[in-house]
Amino acid sequence: MADQISDVSVSLCSSSKYVTPFRLNYKQDGVEKTWDYIKGHDSIAILLYNKDRDVFPVVKQFRPAVYAAKIKAFTDGQKVDTDKHKGEEGMTLELCAGLMDKDKDVTEMAQAEVLEETGYKVPLENLKKITSFRNEVGVNGALMTLFYAEVTDQMKISSGGGLLDEGEQIEFLELSGKDVMRHMMDENIAKPVAMMFAFTWFFFMKDKEEVHT
Amino acid sequence: MADQISDVSVSLCSSSKYVTPFRLNYKQDGVEKTWDYIKGHDSIAILLYNKDRDVFPVVKQFRPAVYAAKIKAFTDGQKVDTDKHKGEEGMTLELCAGLMDKDKDVTEMAQAEVLEETGYKVPLENLKKITSFRNEVGVNGALMTLFYAEVTDQMKISSGGGLLDEGEQIEFLELSGKDVMRHMMDENIAKPVAMMFAFTWFFFMKDKEEVHT
Repeated sequence: MADQISDVSVSLCSSSKYVTPFRLNYKQDGVEKTWDYIKGHDSIAILLYNKDRDVFPVVKQFRPAVYAAKIKAFTDGQKVDTDKHKGEEGMTLELCAGLMDKDKDVTEMAQAEVLEETGYKVPLENLKKITSFRNEVGVNGALMTLFYAEVTDQMKISSGGGLLDEGEQIEFLELSGKDVMRHMMDENIAKPVAMMFAFTWFFFMKDKEEVHT
Repeated sequence: MADQISDVSVSLCSSSKYVTPFRLNYKQDGVEKTWDYIKGHDSIAILLYNKDRDVFPVVKQFRPAVYAAKIKAFTDGQKVDTDKHKGEEGMTLELCAGLMDKDKDVTEMAQAEVLEETGYKVPLENLKKITSFRNEVGVNGALMTLFYAEVTDQMKISSGGGLLDEGEQIEFLELSGKDVMRHMMDENIAKPVAMMFAFTWFFFMKDKEEVHT
């Protein structure tokens, strides 16, 4: 799948429920300072491993923020020539992931996200928390919690691909360990570093330490 | 060092040169969509290893965005009780890192950043690029380039700590490998996942592959 992206334009965003800029006014050791940040959203990501076929279910999708960063889409009113900048430039390889809803149980949310995006119905007890961290500490200090889950072919009950009625359009694919290691250091494949950490954890740390349940 | 943070308040930020929200208007397979993102900044991070003493120079600093995320400082006019929420809540452990200036050579920028924050003057030829990735793909698709550099005690020519006249206030510290592994999975220590990936690369992948120069 190479998503067909067309009719791209940029506008300044005066109000947004996803990206609200705030300023922290404070004193540090008595010196007045300010820092601009956004209200981000805590999130979850799930590293999946299908032990029946020794593959890793991951997702590929068009990410407007990555596309915009690559092509420098930062001018109000800018029109983008999509013959020159195809949607492929905004495609990322990622773990199954989603934003956190404070009112829900985090493990249940992880379960729902895996089902939506990959079609695997993982039992709750298979979802193990690895750790949590900040993706980005400069302008968005939100927390990401990383899970690990083993799945089997029997758990695959639907095709996955995200919630189309929520505008999600996600390609589900399964990578071999060899593919993972090859893609990991390939700078031509845009990807979040959280996924890179998750795979190094799987290959090098998983069997050396206790996984929190 | 626990930075003394006081007089904290939150304001909505109508214009900011650091956090400018944009909206991408586009069609995906013919369906009209929008996505809000910010104009982020490409950045560099440098994993340092002092081979004389087998330690890893890293930095600790107050990060307003992390502090705000932890205490939910997302209301215009909000005053924060700093007796209850001390600056410690916003402290992060990080690799030496900085924003990219497009007009400068990336390796020279890495060299300057290391000197500013840690006081080590690393020869350019010691700075090896590991790889590059996206920290965060949802609202900020900016690229981070990760370097690795071996340093020696002889290269330490100043105390580091950032550029005070630019408002930087950074604590420089050196961790043993044992400390690194202990801190890595400790959720009580706020840290970017880029650092976690860098250390897993050092401990598990570094000697297995070619490092790009």
